[in-house]
Amino acid sequence: MELYREPGYDKVTVAEIAARAGLTRRTFFRHFPDKREVLFFGADKLEAFVVDVVLSAPESTPALEAVAAALAAVARRSDAEPAFADFARDRHTLIRTYAELHERELGKHASLASAMAAALRRRGVTEPAASLAAEAGIAAFKVGFERWVDDPRRRKMGAHMREVMRGLGAVVLEQRTAARAASPSRTT
Amino acid sequence: MELYREPGYDKVTVAEIAARAGLTRRTFFRHFPDKREVLFFGADKLEAFVVDVVLSAPESTPALEAVAAALAAVARRSDAEPAFADFARDRHTLIRTYAELHERELGKHASLASAMAAALRRRGVTEPAASLAAEAGIAAFKVGFERWVDDPRRRKMGAHMREVMRGLGAVVLEQRTAARAASPSRTT
Repeated sequence: MELYREPGYDKVTVAEIAARAGLTRRTFFRHFPDKREVLFFGADKLEAFVVDVVLSAPESTPALEAVAAALAAVARRSDAEPAFADFARDRHTLIRTYAELHERELGKHASLASAMAAALRRRGVTEPAASLAAEAGIAAFKVGFERWVDDPRRRKMGAHMREVMRGLGAVVLEQRTAARAASPSRTT
Repeated sequence: MELYREPGYDKVTVAEIAARAGLTRRTFFRHFPDKREVLFFGADKLEAFVVDVVLSAPESTPALEAVAAALAAVARRSDAEPAFADFARDRHTLIRTYAELHERELGKHASLASAMAAALRRRGVTEPAASLAAEAGIAAFKVGFERWVDDPRRRKMGAHMREVMRGLGAVVLEQRTAARAASPSRTT
């Protein structure tokens, strides 16, 4: 992270990163295809973790509630490790700065959403409800994560996730009420 | 599109694309930085159009309803032009095939969501409601668009957009009801 900040993600070489970590270039490349992937290490494990929480929710749990439980579990893990918060904030600053990192992060989110939708279908949720719950959950997660990163009061990620899930409910309810008032037959 | 299919997006050169279109390479590069951007031509106009619809919704329109109106307007434009549907389906097949196109498409969606959130804030919607409405709207749009592309019955995009907006409402309502039953004080 030091080298990604100075000389900067775009300027630093893999040789420099490997040297700072006390590794050879060859060892670096055994673990990462390039310097970008260093910042996405563990994305596959995160996905497996999230899928696991979705699958292990009680049978009667509604689709979006299973998704919310998975995001709450991610937040709990993060909140339990204070060093992670500093790392995540630094990492997010980089991601906002470099388009190629931002696109990769979006790809990670899209992959998380697909994996959650598949897990919901395995729970018997039909389409489009499975994809909508997964995508809306990731949408809320993105907003909550940004708010957590930027929070001057440094509240826990879990608090932000609860707040955005409630906010999503409020926004959708407000729209449903308006749509139903405008055209009762089409909004059942 | 012919060349992107055969020899394939990854194999075709800008020189070949320019020749097929009867252009010089220089003229190609005056319009597009690379062969990827050809597939995202007009993304900035789409964004401006969507922002315009969000801003011009009646003052009392709820945030997500303004977003839904923008997505419905996009669908209407698409449905009015039958040739567009064929192009959009071919394009989407490419985007699913090549990771770099998929990431670029995700970036386009993220940019659309940010632009709509900014438009909602200009309408006086506070955060996180503005971002949640914009991101949830784009989430529904992505699901609806995929379903439209894959629809063997070839129903209109507008029908798919209405369906996913209703589906989003149903998914959120089901979760709110469950969350409220589990913990009444936290879900107001």
